[in-house]
Amino acid sequence: MSRLESEAKVTGTAEYIHNLDLPGMLHGKIVRSTRPHAWIKEIDVSAAMQVPGVRRVVVAEDVKAVTSVDYMGPAFLDQPVLAIDKVVFVGEPVACVLGDDVHAAARGANLVVVEYEDLPAVFDEVEACQPGAPVVHDRIRPSSMFPDLKSLPDGRDTNVALAFRLRQGDVAKGLAESDHVFEHTFRTPGSTHATLEPFVCIGEIGEKGLITVHSATQNPSIIQIELARLFGVPENMIRVRTAFLGGGFGAKLYPKLEPLAAACAMLTHRPVRIALSMEEQFFTLTRHATSITLRTGVNSDGTIVARHCDVKWNTGAYADIGPRVAQKTGFTAGGPYEIEHMSIDSQCVYTNLPPAGAMRGFGIPQVAWAYECQTDIIATELGIDPLVFRERNVLRNGRDHASGTKLVGAGTEEVLGVLRSSMQWDEPIDRGVGSVRRGRGVAFALKAAMTPSTSVAVVGLSGDASCTVHCGTVDMGQGSDTAYAQIVAEVLGLEAEDISVVHPDTQFTPYDMGTLSSRSLFHMGKALVRAAGEVREQLLDLATAHTGVSREDLELSEGAVIARGGARLSLAELMERQFGMQAGNIIGRGEFTPSYQPPDLETGQSPDIASFWMVGGAGAEVSVDLETGTLKVEKLVVVGDSGRAINPDVVRGQFTGAATMQLGMTLSEELIYEDGQLTNAGLAFYRVPGLLDLPASFESHLIDFPAEGDAPFGAKGVGESGGFAVAPAIANALYDAAGVRVNDLPLTSERIWQALGAPAPVAGGGVD
Amino acid sequence: MSRLESEAKVTGTAEYIHNLDLPGMLHGKIVRSTRPHAWIKEIDVSAAMQVPGVRRVVVAEDVKAVTSVDYMGPAFLDQPVLAIDKVVFVGEPVACVLGDDVHAAARGANLVVVEYEDLPAVFDEVEACQPGAPVVHDRIRPSSMFPDLKSLPDGRDTNVALAFRLRQGDVAKGLAESDHVFEHTFRTPGSTHATLEPFVCIGEIGEKGLITVHSATQNPSIIQIELARLFGVPENMIRVRTAFLGGGFGAKLYPKLEPLAAACAMLTHRPVRIALSMEEQFFTLTRHATSITLRTGVNSDGTIVARHCDVKWNTGAYADIGPRVAQKTGFTAGGPYEIEHMSIDSQCVYTNLPPAGAMRGFGIPQVAWAYECQTDIIATELGIDPLVFRERNVLRNGRDHASGTKLVGAGTEEVLGVLRSSMQWDEPIDRGVGSVRRGRGVAFALKAAMTPSTSVAVVGLSGDASCTVHCGTVDMGQGSDTAYAQIVAEVLGLEAEDISVVHPDTQFTPYDMGTLSSRSLFHMGKALVRAAGEVREQLLDLATAHTGVSREDLELSEGAVIARGGARLSLAELMERQFGMQAGNIIGRGEFTPSYQPPDLETGQSPDIASFWMVGGAGAEVSVDLETGTLKVEKLVVVGDSGRAINPDVVRGQFTGAATMQLGMTLSEELIYEDGQLTNAGLAFYRVPGLLDLPASFESHLIDFPAEGDAPFGAKGVGESGGFAVAPAIANALYDAAGVRVNDLPLTSERIWQALGAPAPVAGGGVD
Repeated sequence: MSRLESEAKVTGTAEYIHNLDLPGMLHGKIVRSTRPHAWIKEIDVSAAMQVPGVRRVVVAEDVKAVTSVDYMGPAFLDQPVLAIDKVVFVGEPVACVLGDDVHAAARGANLVVVEYEDLPAVFDEVEACQPGAPVVHDRIRPSSMFPDLKSLPDGRDTNVALAFRLRQGDVAKGLAESDHVFEHTFRTPGSTHATLEPFVCIGEIGEKGLITVHSATQNPSIIQIELARLFGVPENMIRVRTAFLGGGFGAKLYPKLEPLAAACAMLTHRPVRIALSMEEQFFTLTRHATSITLRTGVNSDGTIVARHCDVKWNTGAYADIGPRVAQKTGFTAGGPYEIEHMSIDSQCVYTNLPPAGAMRGFGIPQVAWAYECQTDIIATELGIDPLVFRERNVLRNGRDHASGTKLVGAGTEEVLGVLRSSMQWDEPIDRGVGSVRRGRGVAFALKAAMTPSTSVAVVGLSGDASCTVHCGTVDMGQGSDTAYAQIVAEVLGLEAEDISVVHPDTQFTPYDMGTLSSRSLFHMGKALVRAAGEVREQLLDLATAHTGVSREDLELSEGAVIARGGARLSLAELMERQFGMQAGNIIGRGEFTPSYQPPDLETGQSPDIASFWMVGGAGAEVSVDLETGTLKVEKLVVVGDSGRAINPDVVRGQFTGAATMQLGMTLSEELIYEDGQLTNAGLAFYRVPGLLDLPASFESHLIDFPAEGDAPFGAKGVGESGGFAVAPAIANALYDAAGVRVNDLPLTSERIWQALGAPAPVAGGGVD
Repeated sequence: MSRLESEAKVTGTAEYIHNLDLPGMLHGKIVRSTRPHAWIKEIDVSAAMQVPGVRRVVVAEDVKAVTSVDYMGPAFLDQPVLAIDKVVFVGEPVACVLGDDVHAAARGANLVVVEYEDLPAVFDEVEACQPGAPVVHDRIRPSSMFPDLKSLPDGRDTNVALAFRLRQGDVAKGLAESDHVFEHTFRTPGSTHATLEPFVCIGEIGEKGLITVHSATQNPSIIQIELARLFGVPENMIRVRTAFLGGGFGAKLYPKLEPLAAACAMLTHRPVRIALSMEEQFFTLTRHATSITLRTGVNSDGTIVARHCDVKWNTGAYADIGPRVAQKTGFTAGGPYEIEHMSIDSQCVYTNLPPAGAMRGFGIPQVAWAYECQTDIIATELGIDPLVFRERNVLRNGRDHASGTKLVGAGTEEVLGVLRSSMQWDEPIDRGVGSVRRGRGVAFALKAAMTPSTSVAVVGLSGDASCTVHCGTVDMGQGSDTAYAQIVAEVLGLEAEDISVVHPDTQFTPYDMGTLSSRSLFHMGKALVRAAGEVREQLLDLATAHTGVSREDLELSEGAVIARGGARLSLAELMERQFGMQAGNIIGRGEFTPSYQPPDLETGQSPDIASFWMVGGAGAEVSVDLETGTLKVEKLVVVGDSGRAINPDVVRGQFTGAATMQLGMTLSEELIYEDGQLTNAGLAFYRVPGLLDLPASFESHLIDFPAEGDAPFGAKGVGESGGFAVAPAIANALYDAAGVRVNDLPLTSERIWQALGAPAPVAGGGVD
């Protein structure tokens, strides 16, 4: 089935917050810090206020006048709405100029003069952990959002915001007893989400002080809760509306522009719109740069015996959800392998860079980069085929993961099997000619979908039996509206095309933990199965009451109740019989909260941390020019365990979409800083993949491994797994082609050329 | 408790559709018929299109291009969106000019030239029933909304749209055997609702063709259903939003501007706003003019033996809900008396006047005008005190009403008792001096709240246990939001001030039959008791699960679960225990559809037509200048059976509000037509009561007669009963003061002066 929203998107009727325009609206332009770490001595707004059309310049003091607390953040309360007293990264919002139009506001913003007193700064996550490094925050306040996130004690002289530890077996003993011990360090750079709809939010104050934000967010419920906390009002005085989202990828999960837009609206009694430029997005949220050291003990037969993982996440100047990345992804930093002795230290580290948080994969692409590069290094050293090595050590379904949670409903072996066949692994490949050599590689990874987490849904039938779905999932391109319509249609015997899935609006749509972690299809899907099921039960009860046919002899199909004998009563007619006219509703509610046990504080283990497991693999065939270092991905295969796909075309789109993003991170994307100043903000300088960068051969394969337990119709989340393993698969193919390894992403021509020994250019530009 | 919305209204943050402004919005101005009955020969829009800023002139042909059927109407499908082929009243919409602003549209509307060919017309409801009268509609199509409304057969040569008959006993025999037979005819003129927020609607076409109307309507659900039928789409493709309403009084129940605004938006792909002037409201919906003849047989001991009622409702050129007025109010046209033999013929009659429909009281003030004037005439003739006469004949609670339905939970005797005491009926009164004489009178009436009818409500708790109420009731000044917050607070042990009652939006709020017939407190109130009850049950279940305290030992109070021993768990904490963090919802649903049996086609009787009974009485003390006919109401007492008042202050406001409206209808309000042309449209010419018109003494008394059955906390609807009996009470006081009767409303000085024998003015303006 085609996506239900396609026509609206093609014809331009699809609603985006970016296009929303309210009468009397002011436009805000943010004045940003030019210093990575400094005291604010003075903010001079006098010149800005002279600009025609500038109405007000809002600074931290103004925000304090309308808020109940000063700091916010999903993990720790460390981030002010506008910088209070000091700035901690270049690009931090310091003031907001409000004007009648964007141009006035921008002119005003250019004229705000901020006087700073510089402080020493630190940018690298490893340096930030050294004794004597400048400390970004000397205090962090716990957040109420995730009760299981425990920071280090206060009175801090460390940049480590959170240190997660996992301990299984005895790693020291395991390493000592191994035939071989390998230690490597891998690094990934900061990168950006580059959503095509930039961050945008309109704040508006309504009746009885209701605070409304129309926001391009992935997470209406969490924004609602956080704004309630910030402004000191109950949740029912906060309304968060969203629409289709032009990409999120984790950037738009937690409060970004919403607190500022709402505060400005309170201060001015007018709606206030703040929309970021693409360049400004680079300073708002990034993906963590990481430094990952793996020490792995292996026996000569190819058995991995022990592994220690040391992961440092550069979370920038504010933690955002970084501590949870460190914690949740720390769980699986050892890879999709069965390893008897495992220890993990996963640290979330503050630096004076823009904040880093969630991004598609939630850290898995970074840790997979490390463990899947090392997997090939080890296999090569041991003389074992890398795929065979993986098959030997793979964590099989039903076995306990190092996190303490059993792997269930996860097709790890099956993903490897499809990689083998789709890469034609048993066939020789063309090795290239002259200076252009070809090679291939594979990689795979797994991820546990996060808990604790709740989704609530409401499904309603109107008097004509037309169906409306209320839920908080944001359709940001992943096709959730279509999938949900299919799910509800299946339960109620309706056509998916006839079902209306309404955009989230927290004044009406129930709670959802957020459109994140590939959880929507699984969690909200399950809530919808239950909500539609409640409707179904009521309809069958009514049909029995009105027809006398017994419950077991009735089925819902084609918009009607159908009796075993073939007699049929349309649902609209049933409603009319029940309510005496075209009237009434049948309403069903569904809620889903998977079971969860918080990790043991000592071992970091828990028997129940995953609502479901995602497994994703990639295979790459590349060509490398040995003279220039130019790498080209000729073929890319993505293999994901989707469970039973509700809509296979949409799943394939998710797999290739995630893989394409990861292709950019592999080959070109990198935030480049000089003394904390980002030098390549904006898509003119930061290169995301274009159509011409896509591999000539680009396959995606769905694995219908039987999902267990709560999966709605056996389906699982698929939004991230396509990207897990792309980078190491390409790096492994590079090695296979050229015999060199590059352990720091991205795999630029220059880095490969350096790894190749920096061969001199061919004189005269001759052809081989 | 004060009304929860007062502050928003006083500070100006209260939302009204009239204030809504959408970007890119066009403004529509309606071109109206200047003829009462005529063929449309040609519509020339060329001059209008030359006006700068005029974008389009929409006529019936354009509407047909986007609609699926041509006619609409709640009772019969008789009314086009814009006149098709012919016009049937002066003021009927013929075209709509769309401009960039209201001024351009209005200039354009003045330049649209319509060529007519006149047809004979009829204006009086009695004349319209004569053989040979011009026929307004030669065909009317049944509507699906009310399956129990049966019109006369098609191929029509009558203006009678619906003829309701009630037959109990043998009236001919009863009249023949009575000691006295009285026959009088009473008339009431057409009048207008004069809502201070004029009709206004913005149509907008959204994503996937969703048709949204932001409308000042009392009835979002019915508008949704009717627009779905008109445009041939399912209900889930229609969204009707409203806000606070600046008065409704029955005018804004059924589609008015909504179909036109939506059609114009479809035709132009832009939002289209149509807002009527106060003058235009006079041509949109009116209150029925009536001619009522009562033939009543009475024995000399004061027992009413038999009564025949002949009621003709002038429903104008389109039926709107007029047939239901004729049918539903026909039921009780015999008054609040126990009369053995009763026959009622209640006819809804088309004429070439603006349509008439529902208005506060739904016809009861008109029939009460007739029967309560006649009651006093009879009592006077028999030499019985009018109050004693009423007490002798009153239909007592528990007795069968002539409609066949038993009177339950109705304090008829109690209303009379409070009238006796509050009017100090047993004390003599000051009779005045000289030409200014004083007198007093009483009257009372009852009404059956209409069925069939359904209300659905949803009550939700957020993760912080703040509570939101979703329902379709429109708060148009009656204070329903406050009452609902009180009801839900009572069930859940919360503070009413903390509960958010959200404005209706059919994309989210469930079905409600409409804010009409004083039904909202009773019907939606009951649905809310049930919805909040579902929340309560879930909370208590959770509390038991999380604390181990047994269900019976737990209570909800002060935002917490409180155990018998005094231990307390706040609801927010309970939510957090259940969902592992501040998350989730508890959702309760409630639905209420009172039982109903359609009337027998032969006798018009039904054992079950009333969901509840309303009883309202009035007492008036007036002074009359015998030389000029000037009548002044010195004291007005309103007595209503409110059941247990949820908010006594609001009930008193409803009683005095309804009485004040009725005071205007009694003394001054009258639509005056000349050959079908309304001569006094607009509040400059049509006089509604001002503050100075209010009686110096104005009391309202609530009677807490124990309501039975489904009444939420024993409460009943109170929006109409304050106005039932005001007019006859004043007329009876006029008779008591001056010895003259005026049987046609309003009681203008001129009519009273005529009744007084048209005394010559005192020469030289002397003082008596």
